[in-house]
Amino acid sequence: MINKLTIFGVGLIGGSLGLGLKRAGYVRQIVGCSRDEAHLARAVERGAIDAYELDPVLAIANADVVLLAVPLRAMEAIMSQIAAHLGDSTILTDAGSSKQSVVDAAKRAFGQQAYEQRLPHFVPGHPIAGREQSGVDAALADLYVDHKVILTPLPETSPKAIETVSAMWRAVGADVRTLAVAQHDLVLAATSHLPHVIAYSLVDTLSQTSFVQEIFQYAAGGFRDLSRIASSDPTMWRDICLENREAILDVLDQYQSNLLELRAAIARGDAESLSATFAAAKATRDSHLFPAVSQE
Amino acid sequence: MINKLTIFGVGLIGGSLGLGLKRAGYVRQIVGCSRDEAHLARAVERGAIDAYELDPVLAIANADVVLLAVPLRAMEAIMSQIAAHLGDSTILTDAGSSKQSVVDAAKRAFGQQAYEQRLPHFVPGHPIAGREQSGVDAALADLYVDHKVILTPLPETSPKAIETVSAMWRAVGADVRTLAVAQHDLVLAATSHLPHVIAYSLVDTLSQTSFVQEIFQYAAGGFRDLSRIASSDPTMWRDICLENREAILDVLDQYQSNLLELRAAIARGDAESLSATFAAAKATRDSHLFPAVSQE
Repeated sequence: MINKLTIFGVGLIGGSLGLGLKRAGYVRQIVGCSRDEAHLARAVERGAIDAYELDPVLAIANADVVLLAVPLRAMEAIMSQIAAHLGDSTILTDAGSSKQSVVDAAKRAFGQQAYEQRLPHFVPGHPIAGREQSGVDAALADLYVDHKVILTPLPETSPKAIETVSAMWRAVGADVRTLAVAQHDLVLAATSHLPHVIAYSLVDTLSQTSFVQEIFQYAAGGFRDLSRIASSDPTMWRDICLENREAILDVLDQYQSNLLELRAAIARGDAESLSATFAAAKATRDSHLFPAVSQE
Repeated sequence: MINKLTIFGVGLIGGSLGLGLKRAGYVRQIVGCSRDEAHLARAVERGAIDAYELDPVLAIANADVVLLAVPLRAMEAIMSQIAAHLGDSTILTDAGSSKQSVVDAAKRAFGQQAYEQRLPHFVPGHPIAGREQSGVDAALADLYVDHKVILTPLPETSPKAIETVSAMWRAVGADVRTLAVAQHDLVLAATSHLPHVIAYSLVDTLSQTSFVQEIFQYAAGGFRDLSRIASSDPTMWRDICLENREAILDVLDQYQSNLLELRAAIARGDAESLSATFAAAKATRDSHLFPAVSQE
């Protein structure tokens, strides 16, 4: 049970958490904060928050937990505004898609000394959930049910703070896991960020060919699947590419060299090597995820 | 209405056509041919064919249309066996995923002179349909309903032969289109073959990282979508890569250089360039296909 939770950014992610927590009766009071009053009023109407404050300092007064559910690039500015006013034992957590960049932003916003004092109560996190629409109108009380939430506590984070944030996410049905910051960033780069870069690049490539009309006219399952995520929010994905740059470049380089080897095998007509690569990939995927085959 | 149709390879593709044509009452007699008698007997049982022959020459006797629905690499051997015995006005068509390679195989199998005589009755084709399972047991009478079938007649192909094959596919509900051979091979390389190469390469890359367990544990929608087609039949896709090599290398090279540019933009932190590329890709996809967004 949490007495007061403050949510910065009451959109799909923050709003869904608010709705879920209110439904579970897990938080006495949820206060929302952002620069958009109409949006906040709508969040109150929907029941995602109990009240709102436009002033970050007022919003965090007596909060037990403060959640930053704003775009990655907005984290540092908010932390700078609240750094000097955050209660000594108030837990700070967030919902950003990359974690080292949030840790770095916290260091800059708090300053080294205050950052170190904050560390026991700092629990970076990332709920792996979403839907097509965004904003508080798209928020759902059960968005996190059976979805993973990855927490990336630092070595100095107190077990009590970790447990408080874990319990909050579990209260809305999430499956809470813990990873090291660097591990999170590499795993997400591989499973989410690289696929998005690939999809954007594929669609961009094909849109520049001379037969773009035919491509979309005859697009079969393979292309439809691969290109779906190229319809994602460009600004959000630009930010992720900038904020998780090192990890993305790391897996992207591995992918590029793998693709170059595959290209060479196709070019020299190396049936054996193609069979081996395709069969290994199929075996890996089938053994880890549910099997699914397409034939076109 | 067709009097006699001979289908080589009564699997998912050939079997589904047989079932659909029998249901539509569009063909008097369908004869199947392959080297697997048990499989052919099963096809008769399922009603996909009326009878079968193990001898290709007997199978094509008095056929109005002969359809090759065998793997790409098996086309030439069958054409070689039937070349000298095909009736003068028997129409030869196929269901292969790449078309120049089938045309080249026909030239070699018939020999230049017989090939030229055959040309008016030669209608290369490619039904864009499939499902997870393969074999005649997976065949469905309505597999082709509302699916595209691309025919790639040659300049010498007679309009009557094109119309006969078109009408046959329309009889099972397909949306029949015509493309030039080279155009088909490029469009399919872009929309189907390249996405498969990308998916195989992505899964192969990630399976070689040190955190493969975590990758599949935390795999979100993006990776699931992109990797799905890496569960496709490795042998079929090896063959497609070899048979449509030139077109695949062409689009693959364009994709690789696009990805290199994107990599450079990420590396130098070029927010503007990333925004522009992502927004253009999203706009292209949204305007051509139904919009769909993922947020992870």
